[in-house]
Amino acid sequence: MASEKKQGRSPELRKDWVTNRWVIFSPARAKRPSDFKYKSPATTTSTTTADQIQDGCPFCLGHEHLCAPEIFRVPTSSDPDWKIRVIQNLYPALDRTLNDPIAVAPNPNLNGVEVLRGFGFHDVVIETPFHSLQLSDLSPQEISEVLLAYKNRILQLAAHSSIHYVQVFKNHGASAGASLSHSHSQIIGLPIVPPNVSARVDSMKQYFNETGKCSVCEIQVKELLIDESTHFISIVPLAATFPFEIWIIPRDHSSHFHQLDEAEAVDLGGLLKLMLRKMASQLNNPPFNFMIHTSPLRVTDPQLPYIHWFLQIIPQLTVVAGFEMATGCYINPVFPEDAAKVLREVPNPE
Amino acid sequence: MASEKKQGRSPELRKDWVTNRWVIFSPARAKRPSDFKYKSPATTTSTTTADQIQDGCPFCLGHEHLCAPEIFRVPTSSDPDWKIRVIQNLYPALDRTLNDPIAVAPNPNLNGVEVLRGFGFHDVVIETPFHSLQLSDLSPQEISEVLLAYKNRILQLAAHSSIHYVQVFKNHGASAGASLSHSHSQIIGLPIVPPNVSARVDSMKQYFNETGKCSVCEIQVKELLIDESTHFISIVPLAATFPFEIWIIPRDHSSHFHQLDEAEAVDLGGLLKLMLRKMASQLNNPPFNFMIHTSPLRVTDPQLPYIHWFLQIIPQLTVVAGFEMATGCYINPVFPEDAAKVLREVPNPE
Repeated sequence: MASEKKQGRSPELRKDWVTNRWVIFSPARAKRPSDFKYKSPATTTSTTTADQIQDGCPFCLGHEHLCAPEIFRVPTSSDPDWKIRVIQNLYPALDRTLNDPIAVAPNPNLNGVEVLRGFGFHDVVIETPFHSLQLSDLSPQEISEVLLAYKNRILQLAAHSSIHYVQVFKNHGASAGASLSHSHSQIIGLPIVPPNVSARVDSMKQYFNETGKCSVCEIQVKELLIDESTHFISIVPLAATFPFEIWIIPRDHSSHFHQLDEAEAVDLGGLLKLMLRKMASQLNNPPFNFMIHTSPLRVTDPQLPYIHWFLQIIPQLTVVAGFEMATGCYINPVFPEDAAKVLREVPNPE
Repeated sequence: MASEKKQGRSPELRKDWVTNRWVIFSPARAKRPSDFKYKSPATTTSTTTADQIQDGCPFCLGHEHLCAPEIFRVPTSSDPDWKIRVIQNLYPALDRTLNDPIAVAPNPNLNGVEVLRGFGFHDVVIETPFHSLQLSDLSPQEISEVLLAYKNRILQLAAHSSIHYVQVFKNHGASAGASLSHSHSQIIGLPIVPPNVSARVDSMKQYFNETGKCSVCEIQVKELLIDESTHFISIVPLAATFPFEIWIIPRDHSSHFHQLDEAEAVDLGGLLKLMLRKMASQLNNPPFNFMIHTSPLRVTDPQLPYIHWFLQIIPQLTVVAGFEMATGCYINPVFPEDAAKVLREVPNPE
């Protein structure tokens, strides 16, 4: 990595004319191209009783010196007994130090390809100081503090005029992409509005233009409902991409996740906890991802009536293979009505 | 499965207004929703020397009775010593027996969602009668016969007026989605043009409208070139989505894979074999997918100048996680120029 830095290799975003898809090239995340070999899956490590503090885990209480710089902590910036830390990612996909985010990198060999310098932010939210706890072990109040840490970091990133979208996501389990087992989530501030977000906004806009209504407000829950709380509902969406995919949706129209207030955060924390526990109980504790689908930062007022944020949870039960990669069309073996029934009818796990 | 059939549960395609993404709901591929639990990864099975014919493998010579019906075989339809068999998938994602492919399934609960009956074809190409051989073990001539089997099946599917796109793909290795280790590929005939194909065609069209040229013909190979043959080149694309992704592209403009003639098929067979062997040798024999990106079946003449087919090979070296699923934006740790150099400079493997 040091030698890569010496060569001045910075991340780049490229989009070519064939796929029309943005890709982030991120040399900090690899050592050398030739080291990038397939590693056969290791034997499943047995789940030993984890200690509260684990040797060598950079996210554990007291190991803060092993991490990249801290951005803020909860409750306060000087409290040694922190509950949550928001830090820089040690292997960031984007580089927060690039000072000219918009400029097209001049590379005459790259014709037909749109290129941006890889400016952006890649942060980690350590959700608990203790190695033995998972997010779903925390209380609704504690989970609300994680959600409000997301909100506060989004508000900071929104102050950068070159940042156009903030993606909050959590990878849980190695096969879902988590490289460290200590419970954490990630926040990436992007200099573009990514393609799935544009597609979602465009589709919501088309529905609004045709009906005058917000497509998410209009979802008929009926047989899709799993649970509900004061401010949120949880459903399996009608065209769920993955089996047992779950959406948690604010009941009242809201475009930006970062509009969440403290009471709503506790309410969402409770429903998120319930969904994660039901999923673990019904599906044998699968690896999972969750993602917050919010509005681009720099939307205009007329866009707000049709953009409605939601949180999507995807248990990792199937493999994304050649067909899905080629077509963008997913094969889901479980009808959403059936998945909702399975999740609805499980007794609330302790 | 029998009970599912009794309940008349047929596959459906659904697209909702939020994601604007088609999903195939395919009950034949699951048993019951409640059985759909996460299975922890098994211990890696050691690669024992495979027998030519393996007990219980439905794709081995002599085990044809274990398979779903055959569509055709190579060399001839009655030869017991077949080299290639094209058969129906025993667990098809789509149902070839539905007789009203276009009709919207009447379901009053599904408002805001576009629904099609799941009409379509899902076939398997058994590439060799012998369990011990992989595609890259075959000669260029033998691989050409597999490629021509794809072509011949595409031509059959094109005769169905409701089929709009044919996706040919290969999953190699369990973690790349292959459920059987016997070397095979798959062909799915779809009643829609899938979203990634529409996006690719639209992007190629935009380039053509702006420049008057085909975006693929115009790719400047230079430092991206891996190898070349009489009729094809192999490159790492400038905005490769995945590390060490490879495209094999016809030198001369061609819109449909099924325009391939016999001489071109042998030439492509040789280059495909070389790429698979180089990838295996440089990247420690990774699981991989390959996909043929061709033109929709029912294109008009004015579309042909800007649609150029290619074959994409993706070694499975990274995990698609929350960020990629949420944004559609991929993080690639290896610059394409570096990946091309690594693949170019490996001595041709024996």
